[in-house]
Amino acid sequence: MNNLVVLVCLESPHAFWNLSGEHEESLRAAFPSVRFRTASEETITEYLPEAQVYLGWRFQPEWFGLAPRLGWIASPAAGTDHLPITEAQTAGVTVTRAYGFHGRPMAEHAMGMLLGFSRGLFTSSRLQRTQGWWKDELAEEFFDLADATMAIVGCGSIGAHLARTARAFGMHVLGVRRNPPTSDPDGMVWMGTDCILQAVGTADVVVDLLPATDATRYFFDCDVFAAFKPRSLFINLGRASTVDQTALLEALNTGRLRGAALDVTDPRPLPMDHPLRRHPRVVLSPKSATFSRTYMDDAVAFFADNLRRYLAGAPLNGVVTAPPAPTSTTGG
Amino acid sequence: MNNLVVLVCLESPHAFWNLSGEHEESLRAAFPSVRFRTASEETITEYLPEAQVYLGWRFQPEWFGLAPRLGWIASPAAGTDHLPITEAQTAGVTVTRAYGFHGRPMAEHAMGMLLGFSRGLFTSSRLQRTQGWWKDELAEEFFDLADATMAIVGCGSIGAHLARTARAFGMHVLGVRRNPPTSDPDGMVWMGTDCILQAVGTADVVVDLLPATDATRYFFDCDVFAAFKPRSLFINLGRASTVDQTALLEALNTGRLRGAALDVTDPRPLPMDHPLRRHPRVVLSPKSATFSRTYMDDAVAFFADNLRRYLAGAPLNGVVTAPPAPTSTTGG
Repeated sequence: MNNLVVLVCLESPHAFWNLSGEHEESLRAAFPSVRFRTASEETITEYLPEAQVYLGWRFQPEWFGLAPRLGWIASPAAGTDHLPITEAQTAGVTVTRAYGFHGRPMAEHAMGMLLGFSRGLFTSSRLQRTQGWWKDELAEEFFDLADATMAIVGCGSIGAHLARTARAFGMHVLGVRRNPPTSDPDGMVWMGTDCILQAVGTADVVVDLLPATDATRYFFDCDVFAAFKPRSLFINLGRASTVDQTALLEALNTGRLRGAALDVTDPRPLPMDHPLRRHPRVVLSPKSATFSRTYMDDAVAFFADNLRRYLAGAPLNGVVTAPPAPTSTTGG
Repeated sequence: MNNLVVLVCLESPHAFWNLSGEHEESLRAAFPSVRFRTASEETITEYLPEAQVYLGWRFQPEWFGLAPRLGWIASPAAGTDHLPITEAQTAGVTVTRAYGFHGRPMAEHAMGMLLGFSRGLFTSSRLQRTQGWWKDELAEEFFDLADATMAIVGCGSIGAHLARTARAFGMHVLGVRRNPPTSDPDGMVWMGTDCILQAVGTADVVVDLLPATDATRYFFDCDVFAAFKPRSLFINLGRASTVDQTALLEALNTGRLRGAALDVTDPRPLPMDHPLRRHPRVVLSPKSATFSRTYMDDAVAFFADNLRRYLAGAPLNGVVTAPPAPTSTTGG
């Protein structure tokens, strides 16, 4: 594997999602026998023919035909629904995602959204401009996090980080996933996604971290929202496709939900006149839950560890396989 | 002390700051030999002559003359600047405050204010209504809590709770108080209030928890704000008198401060056209940082413990003495 060619195409309008010169230097220093090529999406076709490993946010399906030596696509993202996994499998190319470092910024984001509602701060920041005093409104609206229950639906490693943070506030946490563990050393309560109606019925806050798969499409539908605990809060930091937005809006308008905080919507962005944009109890963020100034430090460290494995012929971390055929059961 | 008469006057427009029937029952059950009288501020003069202990939010100085048997005023509040302490001392009446349970809601409030800024959520909730997409603005604005530094000025038991919560997010915490401990088992860094310029210069977030005393008046003045780390955040959950609001506004407008979140202002509420109300990087809350649905449960438990001490002739917790004469040093 000497003289392995790694093609890096990490471009983003946001500096913290780009490879810095320092990152590049650190990779070259750590892997002196590897030849790193850095390309933009405009110049990439020039580099694809010799690429054996590809590190980048996106990989277009038509690039496979130009990359005969390619063996591994490494994405620094946690989600995989934007990657051509089926095509990669056909081409005999391994695809990996990255994990282990999204939980921290996402836990900050989720707790910020939650506390913004629970302490009435979104309401405050609006009313301070329009109303003389608004203490009565807030006294009505606020709730305590201590002893409140958070259900985390699609609770994997990101959810585990959020769970720890929520528990630092004295919250009870209910983990929901397709295959829940039968015991938990931390004493966290677990449920299967088949028990979702029970889970949302006991939670004051439901956080959606489900991945986008055929099985999770419209997972949060009319029936699930109707089972939410009255005056509970819905937070989606996962994928927009997991939520029936019409059902969500209905649950907000009937008062079943006290509010919703959404980092993802369909479409993205929502049209200016979309009712979720203008709803007084909806807070949107622009898919910024994973924003972190140290994102690429962590992503490069994750990749370097995997590259070491690749060179040694050891199994890679984060290998993504094509999703199974759609079934009638729900994902998690 | 048999047949001690305790006069309770706990009235608030907010249910969670009133004594419930259940609280009253629990006190009567725990102290069968004590005679509890419940009064409103309108009927109180009728009950003052026999009162030996007074439990209430406020005590008017003119009431001392009507309460010859009074020995103890117990306030369920943490702050004491609204109590007639000097008059009580003259009348030979002990005054106690309550503590140990304000930290939890105040830590939730402070973290909500902080995360609302650090994750760009206040900006998001505004821009979602006026702008098509705002990811670039947020990418510019956000910051990570992990490895950021919070300075807590006036760091007592409330600050200790906030410090624990901030450290759950991976923050470094700097405690600032008049008499800092020389060592800390948790490894927290401490500074004296005389080192305030150095403290605010190293902090990404400064939380003001100072009490209102002569020594803390305008503690945060032009010189202190000028020493803040560029693009840092100021949060005041303490007392408005500790801040020179003109200097604060100047620090916001020069860009020294990225933002300010204020639970207290002078006057309260601010006039509708006050620049701090309308400032795009200021979030106000209506003195709601101590809002908690369990406030009175904790306050009653604190009072019951003290009443047991009183009946046994043991020293009371939370005894407040008149502040010393003003000096030139700053408080904490």
